[in-house]
Amino acid sequence: MGDTSGTGVAFTRDPSTGENRLYGEYLINAQGEDVVAGVRTPQHIDTLKDVMPEVYEQFVGIAKTLEDHYRDMQDMEYTIERGKLYMLQTRNGKRTAAAALKIAVDLVNEGMITREEAIMKVEPRQLDALLHPQFDPQALKAATPIAKGLPASPGAACGQVYFTAKETAAAAQAGQKVVLVRTETSPEDIEGMNHAQGILTCRGGMTSHAAVVARGMGTCCVAGCSEVHIDEEAKTMTVGETVFHEGDFISIDGSTGNVYGSAIATVDADVSGDFATIMEWADAVRRLKVRTNADNPHDAAVAVKFGAEGIGLTRTEHMFFAADRIAAVREMILASTESQRRIALNKILPMQKGDFKGIYQVMGERPVTIRYLDPPLHEFLPSKNMTAEIEAIAKELETTPEAIIAKIDALHEFNPMMGHRGCRLSVTYPEIAEMQTQAVIEAAIEVTQETGHVIHPEIMIPLVGDVKELAYVRRIVDETAHRVMKEKQVKLDYRVGTMIEIPRAAVTADEIATEAQFFSFGTNDLTQMTYGFSRDDAGKFLDAYYQKKIFDFDPFAHLDQNGVGKLVEMAVKLGRQTRPEIKLGICGEHGGDQSSVIFCHNVGLDYVSCSPFRVPIARLAAAHAAILEKQAKQKKKK
Amino acid sequence: MGDTSGTGVAFTRDPSTGENRLYGEYLINAQGEDVVAGVRTPQHIDTLKDVMPEVYEQFVGIAKTLEDHYRDMQDMEYTIERGKLYMLQTRNGKRTAAAALKIAVDLVNEGMITREEAIMKVEPRQLDALLHPQFDPQALKAATPIAKGLPASPGAACGQVYFTAKETAAAAQAGQKVVLVRTETSPEDIEGMNHAQGILTCRGGMTSHAAVVARGMGTCCVAGCSEVHIDEEAKTMTVGETVFHEGDFISIDGSTGNVYGSAIATVDADVSGDFATIMEWADAVRRLKVRTNADNPHDAAVAVKFGAEGIGLTRTEHMFFAADRIAAVREMILASTESQRRIALNKILPMQKGDFKGIYQVMGERPVTIRYLDPPLHEFLPSKNMTAEIEAIAKELETTPEAIIAKIDALHEFNPMMGHRGCRLSVTYPEIAEMQTQAVIEAAIEVTQETGHVIHPEIMIPLVGDVKELAYVRRIVDETAHRVMKEKQVKLDYRVGTMIEIPRAAVTADEIATEAQFFSFGTNDLTQMTYGFSRDDAGKFLDAYYQKKIFDFDPFAHLDQNGVGKLVEMAVKLGRQTRPEIKLGICGEHGGDQSSVIFCHNVGLDYVSCSPFRVPIARLAAAHAAILEKQAKQKKKK
Repeated sequence: MGDTSGTGVAFTRDPSTGENRLYGEYLINAQGEDVVAGVRTPQHIDTLKDVMPEVYEQFVGIAKTLEDHYRDMQDMEYTIERGKLYMLQTRNGKRTAAAALKIAVDLVNEGMITREEAIMKVEPRQLDALLHPQFDPQALKAATPIAKGLPASPGAACGQVYFTAKETAAAAQAGQKVVLVRTETSPEDIEGMNHAQGILTCRGGMTSHAAVVARGMGTCCVAGCSEVHIDEEAKTMTVGETVFHEGDFISIDGSTGNVYGSAIATVDADVSGDFATIMEWADAVRRLKVRTNADNPHDAAVAVKFGAEGIGLTRTEHMFFAADRIAAVREMILASTESQRRIALNKILPMQKGDFKGIYQVMGERPVTIRYLDPPLHEFLPSKNMTAEIEAIAKELETTPEAIIAKIDALHEFNPMMGHRGCRLSVTYPEIAEMQTQAVIEAAIEVTQETGHVIHPEIMIPLVGDVKELAYVRRIVDETAHRVMKEKQVKLDYRVGTMIEIPRAAVTADEIATEAQFFSFGTNDLTQMTYGFSRDDAGKFLDAYYQKKIFDFDPFAHLDQNGVGKLVEMAVKLGRQTRPEIKLGICGEHGGDQSSVIFCHNVGLDYVSCSPFRVPIARLAAAHAAILEKQAKQKKKK
Repeated sequence: MGDTSGTGVAFTRDPSTGENRLYGEYLINAQGEDVVAGVRTPQHIDTLKDVMPEVYEQFVGIAKTLEDHYRDMQDMEYTIERGKLYMLQTRNGKRTAAAALKIAVDLVNEGMITREEAIMKVEPRQLDALLHPQFDPQALKAATPIAKGLPASPGAACGQVYFTAKETAAAAQAGQKVVLVRTETSPEDIEGMNHAQGILTCRGGMTSHAAVVARGMGTCCVAGCSEVHIDEEAKTMTVGETVFHEGDFISIDGSTGNVYGSAIATVDADVSGDFATIMEWADAVRRLKVRTNADNPHDAAVAVKFGAEGIGLTRTEHMFFAADRIAAVREMILASTESQRRIALNKILPMQKGDFKGIYQVMGERPVTIRYLDPPLHEFLPSKNMTAEIEAIAKELETTPEAIIAKIDALHEFNPMMGHRGCRLSVTYPEIAEMQTQAVIEAAIEVTQETGHVIHPEIMIPLVGDVKELAYVRRIVDETAHRVMKEKQVKLDYRVGTMIEIPRAAVTADEIATEAQFFSFGTNDLTQMTYGFSRDDAGKFLDAYYQKKIFDFDPFAHLDQNGVGKLVEMAVKLGRQTRPEIKLGICGEHGGDQSSVIFCHNVGLDYVSCSPFRVPIARLAAAHAAILEKQAKQKKKK
């Protein structure tokens, strides 16, 4: 209908940045279909000011009225027919994470909404995008991906390619930024993964070792990228026709799965400003405490920066893999008598004590939960076909390769997940629990004396299924702790508790609570046992489950409230029945998932614990939970 | 005090046979210590009749009075001082299984006790000794064991040694009695085990493959006999200095674990006479039905002889291993498209149908529960290092060894117990469930037409954890069944149900019951998942658990009522809540265990199902449960 007619969409604020200015498009002499079809390039709404100033003024007025009414940023569709403005539709607009924060804070400052309303306007899971390094948007525009894998752990990484954990660690220590590229990772790669900017694997899904560990570390990871072919001998990786050598630069995006064949600049996460404001408001309303899962001082420090109020899970096995002690660990495993084992454990003791001191120093008076050795012992030995490794170990430990192979055979398990691990190790080798207790208590005493901070260690016994198991291990812990305290003439307040990660522990939680001062729900294992499938293997059939709509979501990402959640609820009820003051937390990956955190609030846990980079998500989700509960109560009253 | 004094012990009836005559010992001129010390050989109590006829007469009178009073066979201690009889003590006497039956029946016939009291006087677990072949007592006295293993499956066996399943089957078919001797057994040995009189393994515990399968078959088994060394190449076994060659005779006792280096005559079990009488009385009072786990017509027939009222579990995978179809099974596994898989499945169909027809023919109108394919597919392929086997299979299937190795690799699982198995196979390959349904329904129609017996198949979907899984598979079953019935123009009454063997199935049983017409508790897997340990691996630490008194009993032998039992109770309650008429049973090994059967009665199951040789135990235990319940009610009334 000519140049006095047109159509467009507009936002009352900028949906990318949150800036408080009208933002939108306008297509002159056109109808709605033309905007959607994208055949013509629309103009910025500001141009309307010049073309039809009265209409523009009217539009600005309406936009303000609508925003005031809905008390949120509006996404509006409009049309102009021969100079007359018609509003077609308005709704709350979608926005980026950064915009969500800014709009929420601004609306409070403008007096439009309360702080609680502001909190509810930010989706906790959205924060993830802000917590990791990102590619510089300009640099990214110039790049084209050369391959695509699974977005296994968010963030962006740029660095030089290395193909082994050892070389990654060495290069990183020499000051290089490294992307570790491997067919798949195993526990032996932990140290290299720790030093890498990002991790790229050719095999494995969203729950593969690389993906799970990277998410825990907050390190960017692209997994299962089958277009990448590695030649470990030649130290090259090939993508299509292009060959990359050790030391060549690549970039990977763990939020999209994209792999780039060159260096792309990254920018760091910023948690100040509006982010900090919203977090502060969230902290004021939440009831759930938020802790972190951290195995070393670095991760603990990151988590504290992100607001962690304690450590809910320190996995001591990651420490056992460290280069300076793996030999002693293997010596312990290969020992054939208790006294030989004790000799090896005595070598590990000072290092383990050092680990704990480092963590206590970072955490100060915040509680620190230390889980005792959990994985089956064969994880600390190479596989049977790694001849060179076996020979090297035999030489170092002054034994024969045959002896090592015999041990590998003896430790072989059909179902390692359901094998000789967790507290079962402490039952068969109580001296391991003794050594770990000595390290926990001595470290706490020393740090208390050195810093003046009173340290509160919480000793967590994994994989308990029967109260008598816990009672047996707890007796060892208590005896050792009392012996150490007597030697040092110091009294220290420590607690002993257990993971609830075996279905039997959940259904007999009333009995278990007689021996446990706290429960921490290990919902990773609990999910595996409750469903009867292992994360490592489920990848083979879960795709069919999603495709056939048997599963709506990944139960390892979101807590299955219907099944696993029922066991959690049962354990909470039974545990409190026996010991009303029992402390209850969760330390599975679910502790950093929005819907799972809300569930944890609702069943009455005291805290959630998650990887450092998820701490802000958990804080915000906990605030959501508290507000939702309050709203539900008010609704009920009415 | 001279020859008119003495001391002794006596039973009012013979504790070995139950015969109603005074049985006991008498030591003249002696005191109690002398009898116990065993330094002098006592005389039979009958000699007292000649020495001191009055005392003897008085003793006979007192014995009768005591037995009449206690209404049971008495074990009495007495002393005679200068011709005067003093009774020191009396109590109900211990007795053999055979004696228990005879005494119980006799006491009823003598009008001393009721039938219910008689039933309670026989311990169900005692019956086991009567249900298997035993060594001829005279022949056994002359023999000395050469080695001792674990008493893994009761009974006695005598036969010629063979070292492979194939040779065992061939020798047995040629009319020989064979003892299969292997380092350990695997599913590929099933056919040989089926043909053996007994099984001897060098490795593995009470829950090893050999032990579990042998108990299921009712075949004698000695497991984990580490003194036996096998040289498979040379076809010899060595025990100490003695070398046995293929074809040499040995004898093994699965009730004691003894191994003998020669042939010892055996005598068969007899279930007539008093045994049959007690069983008849038990059947009259029990409420629980007793079914059997049977995978072939032979086992089904044995079970019917022992009183089974139906089949609670037919494992179809054992059929898949049979020599005439394993090639087609492997062809199906190696197929890369659905249509290739269908071609292979079509080859299996007529054989599978034949299997079911054979079982229906034996069972007549008794219900038959058929469980669909359960194990992970890699169990049907050889292991990677079995080069010769792989080459043979490649040749037979007209493919390359590399292709087979690639498939073995692809099917590799970290935790096969928690992997791609059970109904997960039907979700990914619905055509397997289709073929099995077609076989179940066509076989039922044909046997109904051929025999006039109306066949009632019950189709059981294993490893369900979510109602939507079951709904998906059930739709395939129902569609296939209706297609077949339409083709044959016959209507057949079949049911579809599920195993409850995954903890999540138990806690969501209310949902699952919307799709399941019956539940069968698979307490073997349920115990594994609930405790979080696998039977295959738990052997490595369970000894320490017994030793340190953490476990009082083997949860695979006796149902863990405290933990696993709670899940069973929950599922019973939730299942009935949704579907009051739901049929509930148990088909784990616990179905034949006395305390577990009583538990099953108490939680309100409809039936238990156990291996054929345990059917009488279950019948008697079910009677005990009913009587105990009645007694408890009467007590409460008072």
